[in-house]
Amino acid sequence: MHASKIVVSEKLDAIAGFWEPGIIAELNGQKVMLAKLLGEFVWHHHEHEDELFYVLSGKLTLEFRDRTEVLGPGEMLVVPRGVEHRPVAREEVHLMLFEPASTINTGNVENGKTVRDPPRI
Amino acid sequence: MHASKIVVSEKLDAIAGFWEPGIIAELNGQKVMLAKLLGEFVWHHHEHEDELFYVLSGKLTLEFRDRTEVLGPGEMLVVPRGVEHRPVAREEVHLMLFEPASTINTGNVENGKTVRDPPRI
Repeated sequence: MHASKIVVSEKLDAIAGFWEPGIIAELNGQKVMLAKLLGEFVWHHHEHEDELFYVLSGKLTLEFRDRTEVLGPGEMLVVPRGVEHRPVAREEVHLMLFEPASTINTGNVENGKTVRDPPRI
Repeated sequence: MHASKIVVSEKLDAIAGFWEPGIIAELNGQKVMLAKLLGEFVWHHHEHEDELFYVLSGKLTLEFRDRTEVLGPGEMLVVPRGVEHRPVAREEVHLMLFEPASTINTGNVENGKTVRDPPRI
């Protein structure tokens, strides 16, 4: 539990790799994470968790089975539980995520991008 | 529940008054709110809710009984449940808040700044 301030840009500097989220805050059973993205993620959904994507820099494409949304800096989207989605970063994207502490990044899929226990950064 | 993108700057334009938060997203029993602040709020705490302050523009002073934190754009702080605090905006501040849907802005205090049912904006 943080009671002192968190400088998001400094926390971003602490993330080395793409698709390797780090936790910057936890509250009310939720976690706030930062991630750097480049390339294509995997199609997945989260059975019980809604997931908030908030773009800090770059352009994030969120693909759904029936449409695509492109988010720029200062834009967010909540993917409701159960909805299949695939994040795609055609350029480097810096992202803030807000979701339950229990959420696993690849949801119902397990693959090389699965991170079960993101570090606290 | 939003499944389309939310442009934070547009939502800020929809807020007319200071200390009048508006809800831009709800997920997992939590709400995401925006607020414009100017001046001094009231000392209060939240009995059961941690509260995340994320500054979008301006400088937000968060006073605690034993110290003060000043947050600029891109900086955040989680005030743990039970901890007395007072937000002070010596200049106009635009703020994002993450907290449980049940949270009332003035916590244990009821006064002219209490907003029991913030609008969805």
